[in-house]
Amino acid sequence: MTHSDPYEIVRREPGQAPRELRDHVAIEEPLEIRVGGRPISVTMRTPGADEALAAGFLLSEGLIRERRDVERIAHCDVESNCEGGATINAVVAQHVALDLVKLTRHVFASSSCGICGSATIDAIRKSFPRVESDLVVDAALIQSLADRLRAAQPTFEATGGLHAAALFDDTGAIRHAAEDVGRHNAVDKVLGKALLADELPARRSILMVSGRASFEIIQKALAGGVPIVVAISAPSTLAVDLASEVGITLIGFLRPRGFNVYSNAERIR
Amino acid sequence: MTHSDPYEIVRREPGQAPRELRDHVAIEEPLEIRVGGRPISVTMRTPGADEALAAGFLLSEGLIRERRDVERIAHCDVESNCEGGATINAVVAQHVALDLVKLTRHVFASSSCGICGSATIDAIRKSFPRVESDLVVDAALIQSLADRLRAAQPTFEATGGLHAAALFDDTGAIRHAAEDVGRHNAVDKVLGKALLADELPARRSILMVSGRASFEIIQKALAGGVPIVVAISAPSTLAVDLASEVGITLIGFLRPRGFNVYSNAERIR
Repeated sequence: MTHSDPYEIVRREPGQAPRELRDHVAIEEPLEIRVGGRPISVTMRTPGADEALAAGFLLSEGLIRERRDVERIAHCDVESNCEGGATINAVVAQHVALDLVKLTRHVFASSSCGICGSATIDAIRKSFPRVESDLVVDAALIQSLADRLRAAQPTFEATGGLHAAALFDDTGAIRHAAEDVGRHNAVDKVLGKALLADELPARRSILMVSGRASFEIIQKALAGGVPIVVAISAPSTLAVDLASEVGITLIGFLRPRGFNVYSNAERIR
Repeated sequence: MTHSDPYEIVRREPGQAPRELRDHVAIEEPLEIRVGGRPISVTMRTPGADEALAAGFLLSEGLIRERRDVERIAHCDVESNCEGGATINAVVAQHVALDLVKLTRHVFASSSCGICGSATIDAIRKSFPRVESDLVVDAALIQSLADRLRAAQPTFEATGGLHAAALFDDTGAIRHAAEDVGRHNAVDKVLGKALLADELPARRSILMVSGRASFEIIQKALAGGVPIVVAISAPSTLAVDLASEVGITLIGFLRPRGFNVYSNAERIR
């Protein structure tokens, strides 16, 4: 469920009297993510695919890499002592080195500034392996992705209030898709679905995001081993720089009349 | 400076050979914000107006309310022992109760989940006074805001990679404007500029944001005492709910053909 019950709103149009009408609004609600019962983060998200969101979040943070790293992800119940709001708890497998203090420190805004200045990209490179993939796709396939997502997901672009993300395979078929008020959450949900389906690293896949491509989007693609990232709108400098360094092909401004390739263009035929 | 030196990119258009060309990209770089020398947060932002960004951030977090609460905000120098990246340090006035432990806990992702579930809006209401303002404006003035921002800021909408925010007075004149890769940063910069100019609470002003209106945008407007918030795109449920509760008029989908009023519509004549 991504949209609310109707809200009473007032519609104003130039030269017309105000009209009262009812309209749906994209839902935004907080979700607390816990690992082994310990609160790690609170994110404002659109309800739905919470398990995937938590899995994708932990993937992006470098805590887990693949399906077998996760023992259980589930909403808290009364026994878990987490009443009062949406809370999801992840139990990771015993073989996962769980440095919660470090994770907490990292998630809680990098207080040591480990990602400041020129150290930014270096820090990420040390945390995740470079994307290794011999994937090469036709420019026409890239060009078709927006229409494919729209066909598969009728609410895409109809909503106005939600970001969308999708993971395509190398034939252009949609593997996973998600919508959220937050672009980062939509990507976490998609990658989390892939992780829970034991499809990571996704070395022959393409990640598409509505809106812009920031540093964090590329970091998430890197964590999932995704070789091609496509954004409908513009990338940032740090996104281009990181994508170049870690072997990701970054495409921006995917529009009917073409697109721009910002890094590792050899993957586009 | 919001845009990079030109990047080498590859342009692909249907039915055409790839073309190499040079294009500017919106700059994204980390900034560490310190209070009294202590690191509080790292944000990915577009360089420029860093002092205002830090002031607006501390305003939104409820640490400062007005100009006299700030003694000094400046980039760190070598003596401050913060080499290696962009760092800005705020010194607050002696009369400000500085609970850094609480602030750190709050900023670093609300680990106690103080904003979870039904407590979300209550927690914000306890932290900030309700917006009190007898401001009433014409619908035509609201309708004109997008053009006014575009006229004042030529790069608005030209960039594709940046969000914009602006604070207008009750005649529709721009008081402050800012651009950033992050919508929240653009709002922090605008409110920070108002705070540093000793104009808060801005009880007769209108805050406009490109893109959507989320919970956090309304929280920031509340912190600045702004009675009207206008978004180009959609609001979320939590944004509408919070705006209704705290006395903010929330307008969404500002387009040439009209706009929607989601809360406290009595301020629009």
